[in-house]
Amino acid sequence: MKTKQSQEANKKMSLEVEIKDGKSENSPLPEEKLVSLIQESYDSLRDSHEIDSSTEPISNPLIKLVLEKLERHSSLYKYIVSVTTLDVGDLNEGANDFSLRNDTGASWQSKRDGIFNYKLESQNNNTCYLITILWLHK
Amino acid sequence: MKTKQSQEANKKMSLEVEIKDGKSENSPLPEEKLVSLIQESYDSLRDSHEIDSSTEPISNPLIKLVLEKLERHSSLYKYIVSVTTLDVGDLNEGANDFSLRNDTGASWQSKRDGIFNYKLESQNNNTCYLITILWLHK
Repeated sequence: MKTKQSQEANKKMSLEVEIKDGKSENSPLPEEKLVSLIQESYDSLRDSHEIDSSTEPISNPLIKLVLEKLERHSSLYKYIVSVTTLDVGDLNEGANDFSLRNDTGASWQSKRDGIFNYKLESQNNNTCYLITILWLHK
Repeated sequence: MKTKQSQEANKKMSLEVEIKDGKSENSPLPEEKLVSLIQESYDSLRDSHEIDSSTEPISNPLIKLVLEKLERHSSLYKYIVSVTTLDVGDLNEGANDFSLRNDTGASWQSKRDGIFNYKLESQNNNTCYLITILWLHK
C-alpha cells in the first residue's frame, strides 16, 4: 500500500466535513487548478437549465464533465472520479446524529499515480459531496 | 468515460443499501472470490483482539488486508481499495432521515480495467461499509 487518504463528514445537527492528507504533488494539474476545475463544473451544472438538481442527482453529469476536462488536459493518465453524495434531509427535523468517512488505499507507482479529495456543499447546505479524483500513469 | 458505477445507502429509520451495476467480468478474481476475500478480511479483523472496532475505525486495517490479498493473487494490476463508512449512531434516538450515494466514473481501458462494489454491515447494524475495489492493468 503506497498511499493512504481519508476524508470525513461528521454531523451533529450541523454539517461538518474534514478532509485529511490531501496530497497531490504529482498531479497532472496543480491543486488550485483541480479545485477550480471541480468547482466550475459544479457551478455550470447547478446553473444549467438542462439539469434539475432538486429531482435528479448531479453526481453523474458532474463526473462526466470532470473526466472530459481531465482528459483534455492530459491523455497520459487513466482517470477515476468518484462522488459520494450525502443528503441529510431537513436539518430542523429531529436529531440527525451520524458520521461519514471515506478511506482509500492503493498499490500503484507512488511517484506517478496519485489522488485528490475535495468537498462541495450545496447552497441549502443539506447535501454534501465528497469528490475523489485518481490519476494513474498509462 | 468507459464505466459507470453507483452504490446507494438510503435510510429512513432503518438501514438499507442498494448496489447497482456491479460489473466485474474482467476481474483478476471471480466475483465470489472477491466477496469472500472481503468478508474473510472483515471477519478476521472483527474477531481479532488487536483491534477494538468500537473505538478505532476498522477501515484502514481492512484496506491494508484486502490490498495484500489482491497483490498476492496477481501482480499484473494496480489496485485501489476505497471504504466509505457510515455510522448512524443510535437508531432509536429521533428521526434519522438521509441518503448516501456513491457514483464512480473512469476513463481507462475498459477491457482490462474494472471495478467491484460490495456492502458490509456491522453486527449491531449501526454501521455500514461501502467497499469499492478497482483494478488497473499495468
